[in-house]
Amino acid sequence: MQNFTWHNPTELIFGKDTVKDLAPRLKADNIHGVLLVFGGKGTFKSGAYSQVTDMLNKAGINFSEVNDIKSNPRIDKVREGVSRVKAGGIDAILPVGGGSVFDSAKAIAAGSCYEGDVWDLFEDKSKISKALPIYGVLTASASSSEVNNIAVVSNPEKGLKISINSPVLYPKISVIDPSFQVTLPEKQTVYGGVDIIAHILERVLDGDEGSELVDELGYSLIRTMMRVIPDLIEDPKNYDLRCEYALAGAMAHCGFLSMGRTARGDFSSHRMGHSISLLFGAAHGASLSIIMPAWARYLYEDNPVPFARLGEAVFDIYDGSDEDKALDAIEALEDFFKDINAPTTLRELGIKEEDVQKLADNASRGESFGVLSKLEPEDVLEIFKLAY
Amino acid sequence: MQNFTWHNPTELIFGKDTVKDLAPRLKADNIHGVLLVFGGKGTFKSGAYSQVTDMLNKAGINFSEVNDIKSNPRIDKVREGVSRVKAGGIDAILPVGGGSVFDSAKAIAAGSCYEGDVWDLFEDKSKISKALPIYGVLTASASSSEVNNIAVVSNPEKGLKISINSPVLYPKISVIDPSFQVTLPEKQTVYGGVDIIAHILERVLDGDEGSELVDELGYSLIRTMMRVIPDLIEDPKNYDLRCEYALAGAMAHCGFLSMGRTARGDFSSHRMGHSISLLFGAAHGASLSIIMPAWARYLYEDNPVPFARLGEAVFDIYDGSDEDKALDAIEALEDFFKDINAPTTLRELGIKEEDVQKLADNASRGESFGVLSKLEPEDVLEIFKLAY
Repeated sequence: MQNFTWHNPTELIFGKDTVKDLAPRLKADNIHGVLLVFGGKGTFKSGAYSQVTDMLNKAGINFSEVNDIKSNPRIDKVREGVSRVKAGGIDAILPVGGGSVFDSAKAIAAGSCYEGDVWDLFEDKSKISKALPIYGVLTASASSSEVNNIAVVSNPEKGLKISINSPVLYPKISVIDPSFQVTLPEKQTVYGGVDIIAHILERVLDGDEGSELVDELGYSLIRTMMRVIPDLIEDPKNYDLRCEYALAGAMAHCGFLSMGRTARGDFSSHRMGHSISLLFGAAHGASLSIIMPAWARYLYEDNPVPFARLGEAVFDIYDGSDEDKALDAIEALEDFFKDINAPTTLRELGIKEEDVQKLADNASRGESFGVLSKLEPEDVLEIFKLAY
Repeated sequence: MQNFTWHNPTELIFGKDTVKDLAPRLKADNIHGVLLVFGGKGTFKSGAYSQVTDMLNKAGINFSEVNDIKSNPRIDKVREGVSRVKAGGIDAILPVGGGSVFDSAKAIAAGSCYEGDVWDLFEDKSKISKALPIYGVLTASASSSEVNNIAVVSNPEKGLKISINSPVLYPKISVIDPSFQVTLPEKQTVYGGVDIIAHILERVLDGDEGSELVDELGYSLIRTMMRVIPDLIEDPKNYDLRCEYALAGAMAHCGFLSMGRTARGDFSSHRMGHSISLLFGAAHGASLSIIMPAWARYLYEDNPVPFARLGEAVFDIYDGSDEDKALDAIEALEDFFKDINAPTTLRELGIKEEDVQKLADNASRGESFGVLSKLEPEDVLEIFKLAY
């Protein structure tokens, strides 16, 4: 096992009707004004908006708003938030939404404490030294942004979707009330679920053999998600299933599964998926259900072990050589994605064969990347071809 | 799933040669003098003492010492530590040892900020409001004390072994260098391992059905421990096995497996085990390998479900009714304890049959307790009889 440090200071308040528990905490921390950051109608439909604004009104805390944050959030909305904060009267950022909203809130929190343009922080994360505190309310689980220090933001002018992280970006408190998620559209449950599974796969498939215990915990979380997603498609209002989904979602990408690993996971598929989202507006989860199996098929013959272990632990595949098990596991994973109606080919998104080169170029940017296997630009092109 | 909060602020520094990483942290926090708290010769043998004192000397940090902390630590050593701190010059407590040493350090840290006698805090934990910061170095995994806010201390005069907990008692930083544990005697590896397994069982066997995901994580940790303990008996110097043991040990009782549970676990077996340790000086782990199977045998017919689930997930027991599976699981657990040479009867400790009533009285103290099943004093007596 590799040396590591673990410190996740975010406080989680989890369960039904817990938004109101934020009020005494905001008051104790001397917060008089907050910037609400949220998306669109889902925030109203889930009841989260009214619960949060009621809580703030009763507590006598002022708020202004930046709304219309979209998935694959953009730097222009972050700039709008930073301007609001710099205009004064705001002591903290209060995201109400899913990963995109939390990511935007983190970028606003850091950008508000930086005198230049906030995009600078994405191009050079050493410039991030301070951030306003974040008190968040999660309404859609997927990214673990509610319990990690990562933010991913797109800059369409520059054609970039970049991730930053910093110890100052952990939310101070995150409220996870899974009952807000019972109104999510099926697509979002599916894509969020794929993202959660992908966050775990990026670790357990990174080829690190020194962390069997952590792999075991990862397999348990994948089995949970594979049980819960199909059940939620049948029974979307089931609160207990939403709880398991939300808790697995928080654990998948909070750093917990990176303990003892050489790298902190592979994340090649995330990098390639980001290109599909950036260039074709694909949902993040949809990009991952397409690219992960293609990545796996391209690599498994040279690296069968992590795929074979996944096959045993998650899909009860025990027959044949490691290579046989690996291929069976990849097929089982792909079948699972098909069963829950997640796309597994670029074609299903209406992307054309001639766009494959463009995707590969955007993902590679002339560099090699990857942990289980270093991917050169020509490998990346082959993977996108397999994904077509 | 029940509502819960999660906040574990302890920073973990994990891996080989990491003691030196404490120096810059102590300096950054303006710590000029520390109280070293440790046990006996194991601290020297493991190399931990010399690494810690070298680190302090190089950093120019003064230290005084309270040593000879024994397992089942006693309030008199805590009082000694508090007096040292009150004499001045100490800004932080630095335990170097296992659970008993960390528990003593926490009690000293709290007692040093309290003007009365430190035992008051055990009799009324609402009196704990402040504590000196704790920077610890773990040399024996078992209790998770390095990452939780719990301290268990015995008061032999009063015939009590009591646990306290408070948000102010989390260590600020804990260094876990598993290479210190390669010199542990086999008995300690075994008893520590039993304690770790027991911390998980106290949760997954508490009858709470709302937290299947958390149970799954618990089963994974038990499987890890059942793989690692026998391997360590064969190969005690194996660093990677020591890492898995240490990491599972930290996770088992840091609060993580209590998420979403109605109670935070059952802990009847711990309460009964404490009496065996207090009255007969038994190692904590030995008390648990004796009492847990007896507790399980006494209860399983009325509560087969959690035992049956354990049987499936940990021992691959799939045949028969839940009651059949439950009994098979209990027998398999007991067999595992026997295989690793942990005692499973009071007799093996030289305890006499007439002492059983005394043990039951000490554990019950006239109250009922327990989560899976409320244990009245007469139930407790029956369990101790079964354990005889």
